[in-house]
Formats: sequence, C-alpha cells, structure tokens
Amino acid sequence: EDTWSVADKTFTSRLLVGTGKYKDFEETAIAIEESGAEIVTVAVRRVNVSDPKAPMLTDFVSPKKYTYLPNTAGCYTAEDAVRTLRLAREAGGWDLVKLEVLSDDKYLWPNNVETLKAAETLIKEGFKVMVYTTDDPTMCKRFEEMGCVAVMPLGAPIGSGLGVRNPYTLKIIIEQANVPVLVDAGVGCASDAAIAMELGCEGVLMNTAIAGAQDPIRMARAMRRAVQAGRDSFLAGRMPKKLYATASSPLDGTFF
Amino acid sequence: EDTWSVADKTFTSRLLVGTGKYKDFEETAIAIEESGAEIVTVAVRRVNVSDPKAPMLTDFVSPKKYTYLPNTAGCYTAEDAVRTLRLAREAGGWDLVKLEVLSDDKYLWPNNVETLKAAETLIKEGFKVMVYTTDDPTMCKRFEEMGCVAVMPLGAPIGSGLGVRNPYTLKIIIEQANVPVLVDAGVGCASDAAIAMELGCEGVLMNTAIAGAQDPIRMARAMRRAVQAGRDSFLAGRMPKKLYATASSPLDGTFF
Amino acid sequence: EDTWSVADKTFTSRLLVGTGKYKDFEETAIAIEESGAEIVTVAVRRVNVSDPKAPMLTDFVSPKKYTYLPNTAGCYTAEDAVRTLRLAREAGGWDLVKLEVLSDDKYLWPNNVETLKAAETLIKEGFKVMVYTTDDPTMCKRFEEMGCVAVMPLGAPIGSGLGVRNPYTLKIIIEQANVPVLVDAGVGCASDAAIAMELGCEGVLMNTAIAGAQDPIRMARAMRRAVQAGRDSFLAGRMPKKLYATASSPLDGTFF
Amino acid sequence: EDTWSVADKTFTSRLLVGTGKYKDFEETAIAIEESGAEIVTVAVRRVNVSDPKAPMLTDFVSPKKYTYLPNTAGCYTAEDAVRTLRLAREAGGWDLVKLEVLSDDKYLWPNNVETLKAAETLIKEGFKVMVYTTDDPTMCKRFEEMGCVAVMPLGAPIGSGLGVRNPYTLKIIIEQANVPVLVDAGVGCASDAAIAMELGCEGVLMNTAIAGAQDPIRMARAMRRAVQAGRDSFLAGRMPKKLYATASSPLDGTFF
Repeated sequence: EDTWSVADKTFTSRLLVGTGKYKDFEETAIAIEESGAEIVTVAVRRVNVSDPKAPMLTDFVSPKKYTYLPNTAGCYTAEDAVRTLRLAREAGGWDLVKLEVLSDDKYLWPNNVETLKAAETLIKEGFKVMVYTTDDPTMCKRFEEMGCVAVMPLGAPIGSGLGVRNPYTLKIIIEQANVPVLVDAGVGCASDAAIAMELGCEGVLMNTAIAGAQDPIRMARAMRRAVQAGRDSFLAGRMPKKLYATASSPLDGTFF
Repeated sequence: EDTWSVADKTFTSRLLVGTGKYKDFEETAIAIEESGAEIVTVAVRRVNVSDPKAPMLTDFVSPKKYTYLPNTAGCYTAEDAVRTLRLAREAGGWDLVKLEVLSDDKYLWPNNVETLKAAETLIKEGFKVMVYTTDDPTMCKRFEEMGCVAVMPLGAPIGSGLGVRNPYTLKIIIEQANVPVLVDAGVGCASDAAIAMELGCEGVLMNTAIAGAQDPIRMARAMRRAVQAGRDSFLAGRMPKKLYATASSPLDGTFF
Repeated sequence: EDTWSVADKTFTSRLLVGTGKYKDFEETAIAIEESGAEIVTVAVRRVNVSDPKAPMLTDFVSPKKYTYLPNTAGCYTAEDAVRTLRLAREAGGWDLVKLEVLSDDKYLWPNNVETLKAAETLIKEGFKVMVYTTDDPTMCKRFEEMGCVAVMPLGAPIGSGLGVRNPYTLKIIIEQANVPVLVDAGVGCASDAAIAMELGCEGVLMNTAIAGAQDPIRMARAMRRAVQAGRDSFLAGRMPKKLYATASSPLDGTFF
Repeated sequence: EDTWSVADKTFTSRLLVGTGKYKDFEETAIAIEESGAEIVTVAVRRVNVSDPKAPMLTDFVSPKKYTYLPNTAGCYTAEDAVRTLRLAREAGGWDLVKLEVLSDDKYLWPNNVETLKAAETLIKEGFKVMVYTTDDPTMCKRFEEMGCVAVMPLGAPIGSGLGVRNPYTLKIIIEQANVPVLVDAGVGCASDAAIAMELGCEGVLMNTAIAGAQDPIRMARAMRRAVQAGRDSFLAGRMPKKLYATASSPLDGTFF
C-alpha cells in the first residue's frame, strides 16, 4: 500500500485540509469527511476558549478520528507563533504542529526570517515542526537541516487559488528533500491538486479551495480524487511528451 | 445523478478509452476495467478478421458490457473512412461510430475537409457520427449542424501527451455546442484530464496516456479519478483566482 | 541583410499592420510610421468611396510609400469576399490581397470552408492570395498547395490580445511550409510579437494591439523593436533551457 | 526622456549585462557594445590580478565608458562575499556593488540567510548594495528596508534560460518596492526580457542568454531591442485581454 509518514505516524490520505471559512461546523465536518483527509489543521487563535456554551470544532470533527495539526495562522512574529503553539501544547497535548509566520495581512506571504527563529525555538522545546514557507529550495533545505519534520512550500499565495505557479522550484525542493514535502496554499481547483502531486510531493494541504467553492462538499470529493489521481499518475510513470506522436525523441523543451 | 447522453444512450462514466497499444489483450482488459470506461473505441482496421484462431478483443472486452465505438484510425480519405465504417456496420451492426480522417502519418492531424465529406455521407446513410476534429469552433459548429451526434476536438496532437494546449478555443466550442463535446487526444497525465473536464466538456477520450504509461493499470485508475475529480471541480464552482487573498476583485488577467 | 519576400516583392520590415480603430487618420499615419511597417492592410469595406470631400486614408498613408494589402474584413461568405476583392482590383489595381472569411461577428473566427472556396476562385482569377486562417497545419498546407502566396494563421482570436495560444501548432505549420507564414491576430503586447517571431515565422500582422493601446504611437514603436528582437533572437540561436545551469542535458520537458 | 536611477546615478539603458562566458574579451566588448548596456557586472573572483601580461577586461570594456558593478559570483558565505567586495573597493574604488551569495554550485540558488548577513555588514561599511535574491516579496522588502539601493529578484535559476517563471511574485515585489527592481537571472531569449519589462520593473540583468547564444552579437542586439520594446509596451498601456473581441468585459481569469 502507498502510505507516507511524518513524525512516526503513517497516513494513507495525502490530502490535508484546513478547518476555517466554512458556513458552520456541520458543513466543516461533512466536507472533511468527504475529502478523506486524516490530518486537519486548526488555527489555534480561532479556537473558541472563552465561551463554554458555544459550539466547538472538536464536537464535529473528532480529534480521536482525525490528527489535529495546530497552526499559527494570524501570527506575524516568531514570538507570537511560539507563544501560540506552547498554548496549544498545554491545552491539548499537541506537539506535532504547523508553523507559519506571515509578513503582512495583505499578501499573507511567509516571513522566512521570523519563521526560522520560531522553528529554532520550537524544535529545541521538543515540538515536531511542519513548516510553511516559500518555494525556495535553499530555505526548505535549511528547515530540514534544523530538524523540521516536514517542509510545506507554497504553490501560490494563501487564498489566491492560482495553482502551482512554479513547478520548477518545487521539483528542485522535492529532489533535494529527505523529509516529506507537502504543497501548501495556492490550490484552486482539482487539476491544481493533481499537478502538485504529479511533481512527486508527499501531499497537498488546502483550505479555501474547498471551503470557498460554491459547493464545498462536492469540491471536497473532487480534491480527494484529484490527489489520489495525481499520486497514481506520478507513480505510474507518464508517457513522454512529444511534438507529434511519431517523433523519435521526446520534446526537449528548447523553444516552449 | 450526473450522467450524459449521446445518441439516446446514457452513460455515467465520462472517460472513453481506446483499445490499442497494450502489451496484450489481458492488459487491455484490466486497464479498461480499472478506467471505469463504459465506451471503448476500436480501430476497425486493426480488428482481426482473417485468423479465426487468433485471440479476439471481444473475448477480453465484452461488447455486452462495453459500448463499442468503431473508429477509422488509419484512414486518410473520406472514401476510406466511409468504407471502413460500412464494414463495421455490416460486421457488427454498429452505427454509433467515431469518425476520424487524418492528413498524414507524421503529425496525425485531422483533415477537416475530408472529414466533412465523410460525415456528410455517413449521416445520410444513417450512421450516428461522433467526429474527431481540430479545436476550431466554427468547424465544430458545422459538424453539429450537419447532424453529428458529438464533436470531439483535440486537446493536442494524437500521441503527443501535451495536454490541453488551448483552453480558450475549447471554452468557445463548449459554449456554442448543443451536442456533447468530448476532448479527444492530447491528454498525457491525470491533471491534463482534470483540466479538460474543468472546462465543462462532457467527457474525455484517451488511449496512449494509459497504454503508454509505464504502469498502464495504475494510470487507468488515475484517469478514472481525474475525470471524476475534474467533473466535480467544474460542477462545484471553483473559488475565484486572485493575485492575493484579500484582493476585493478577482484577477482580471490583464497582464498574465 | 535579412529580408523576406512574397509575390516577388521583397521586404525588410517583418511587421505588417492594420489601419483601423485609430482616433483619426493622423494618428494612423504616425503610428504606422513609427511601426516601421512596409505593408499595411486596408479593409475594402471601410474605404470611403461615397463622399469625395471626406478625408481619405491614402492622403495620410501614401500607397507610394507603403504596400497596400486590401483585406476582406466584414465578409462572412466566399461570395462576399470574392466580390469585395474584385472591387479592390478594379478600383486600385491591387491583386496582392489578404483574404479572410469569418464565421460570425461574435468570435470573429475564420470560416475555413468558405475561405477555401474564395481562395480557389481568387487564385483562378489571378489574385495573389495571402490567406488568414486557423492554426491548423493541414489547412495551412492545403492553402499553400492551392496556390496561396502566404498563409496567415491566427495566434489567438482577432481583437482578443491573448498572444500566441498554441506555439506547438504554429511550429508544425512553419516546419511544413514552403510559402511565408505570418502570424496574424492575437498579439496583445510586445512580448507576444517577440514570441511569434522566435517560432521562426516570417512576420507578424496586428492592428488592435497598437490602435487599442492607451498610447498607440509608443506601442507602435514597441512592436517594431519587438519584431526585430524576436527575429534576431530566432536567428541568433538561443541558449538551451535547463532546470539548472550545471545540468548536463537540456530540459526534456517530461513533466512541465 | 525615460530614465532610471540607482545610487544617484541616472541611466538610459535598462539592460545590464554580465561579462563572463564569452569566447574572448573581444567578443565580450562587441556584444556589450551591441547590447547598449551602460552597467556591466564583473565577477571580482575572476578578475585577473596575478599576471600583468595577460589581457585585462578593462582594456576591452572601458570603466570610463561603462559603470562597473563588481559582483560576488562564486561566494557561498556572507564572510566570503564581504571580503570579496572589500577587495574590489580597495582595488578600484568601487562601492556600488552587486551582492550575491549562493547556496551551492549545482542549482546556484540564492542563500537569503547569508545574503542578509552580508548586506548588513556591507551597508554599515558604506557600500551601495544591489542585491540578488529570490522572487520573495517579503525578503525583497526586507533588503530594501535594510538600505539596499536596488533589489534584483531572479526570474529563474542562473543559467537556466527558463524565463520569468512566476510573474505573480515579481508583480507583488514591484508593487511594494520603493527602490529599483531589476529582474536578474533566468532570461533565455528576447521575449523573456520583454516579459520582464512588461511587468513594470526598472531593468533586466543577464549574461548567459547573450554569451551562451550561438551568435552572441546578434543576441545582444536582440536583447537591447527587447528590453526597449518591453519598456515601451509597459508604458504604452496594453489593450485588455478578452476571450473574444466583442466581449464587453476583459477576461477575468476565472478559469485559466
């Protein structure tokens, strides 16, 4: 069977999903179920801790069934991100976490300098850090060498739906990596997810592409199959590209 | 349920597959099974008619289970194509056919002038013609107006694996059509199939992408899911594309 | 010196321009001057013939300086196109013409069936036909074999500004051709023109890209240089594409 | 007149060129002349300092005519880069410099962490730093805020000839910047250079695209015009992109 592992846990599904931006927790739960995801990320900042009567995500998406991956969405400094994840560990015992430190609230672009600082501290404190970053091969390598358990380069800016903008850099990142590479952010439709998987990465993480579709449940199903299809397409070894069928050698990319 | 119809038959699967280029009929049968296809195209020219002891495709891929769609692969003139399909009708009673007339054996590019002539004759003779052609909106419209039951524009040259080269023309073809539009030829990997379906066409036909993969069985499965994923992705209504998440209006494509 | 020829005339400039859609004839004249074009196309239908006092294009863009290429813009049938060009020959003696027959006034897509009919008649009558058509290698070959003196496949629909949508088909057309291939329609900005030239075609024809820019004069200059740059870039023999500089073999296009 | 400035110097040419990889200094000189460049970058490491009789670049490409921009090609640590530029300042009095610190000799990818360290030191020591980096908007902003006089994000890896791989990130970088943005590395042919300029950057820097062409002199001329054309194309304000000419609104990029 085709599985992948991170931090000594093994998974079958290669689609990881966020839990934000849905109409309500019910829709969240159905969409996640339909997506086949085994790992869900949760913004620690958005978890309701103050009102004990309000509905809780955990009542709809059981932490017994899904691996919760607390994330630092909304954190713009290393300090803030570290504090947030310490809180998550105290509250729920989670130490497998998704670290993201953004630079601003317009482009939501990763701030690698702050992310590096946060990663260093968190790893020292025993966290297993899956790190969200740019599609920068050198930066990804550095995060791996620091001890991050997975690197999660972006396909395109968060919430942009632009798909995989630069397959070349992702290809280099995947070639170089000794930890799982997951494409995180940018996917907008099913073919985007398939393209990411065909590059050979271990998985794809998305949120808006599902929650922001007109029919999130149907899109969740589309994404489940697209990730499976992309994975199989990668493993099956695609036919060569040629300018025409009878060409004796594959297209060498010289002009296009 | 999401189905589509052609010539009064209704289908659930939107993946149509060819039967050529496999190692043997056993592999053909397993790959087709795995693809979930309900319609298979068969090159009349390649059907064994002379040696009664040689293995027959029909022994492995039952015409009772699959809708056979005889095609005119290898025909370079209208006359030749018409003769070939008459033969198929006499032999097996098939009148739902795939017409293709190519211009040469290097690029395998459709010859629309000869195809028009053949379609005219065949329709007069009562054939239900699904026609392979270029991604030319005017030509597709003309085939529809002549009475073809489906138009099958290419995504890229046969056997090239280049994927959907021109989504703009396909988009126009689909917008204009009152008969099913199936993207035929060009698909090379799973994401290509998903992209075709996300344009809103009714289905995708392929052969080399599956038969020419290193592991055809696995690729067949990838394609089944990719077509389903692309269809759902189309129906679900994707999120808008934006240069950044907080942009108030979708990307207007002015520069890219 | 790097020149090209059509119908026994030799030209240095590889940029051909339309004369429509400008603010006034003065702007038309300056833009054309700045573009460096030696051939200008003129819609016969739009030529003023009724009011002798109204300004005339020929007063601003001299037929002594520029080669006038009458075109059949606005014609939707072979008959109409033929009649229009006969008129042009009678009026101005022009027999080098640009034939275009469109299918509708929404997409402005070439109608190849009508274009074929018109070309046949015109060639019989001694016209030298430069033909506007789709990027269909077989159709382009057919026009060449009929006796057209140049084939002018579209880069994208007229007035769309989408650039060269399918370099693969243009590449095949150019490889196969024994008459000049000019990319006509679709160019929107300077890089589009350079891309067309880098494919190895003989020239580029455009109108809206210049006349529809906010500053047509400056865009005309941009286009002049872009066409020269693209031509030189083609002739100079570009460096190979590689995934990284030290790769021993050029990028084989297997995955992207 | 359309000029740009860096470190209080004003330039007309927007094409900056490297001086390496040519057959000999004579070819270097002619190609640079033909390119119209006013700024040339020189790898300090490759400057001949040991053999007084060997030919010198300065004898062929006069520092009186061209602005020399010493660069740190071949440096893999901040320390090394700083030492190299100190040497350049001592030797030639140059303080306007191009800083690049790479991570490895395979992908030649920028090492932003080391580059940050080097930039900090160099700026303190009074250098005017033009910095080569990834197409990371946050990193570019950080270099600007530190005091770099120009940021030079890559279009694609050095020596790859892949062109501008991610116009979206460059667009964001340019939108955000208050210092000149120059696209550095990745250009392979003339259209690539035009595309970079059409994004609105201040200039383009290249080396292999010219020196590695089969005819470097002709390619240098192509690049000069391509950069001018791209600049004019940007300033002229291009026509909108539409799926078809008569569409009332520009293409919104929803599906492609």
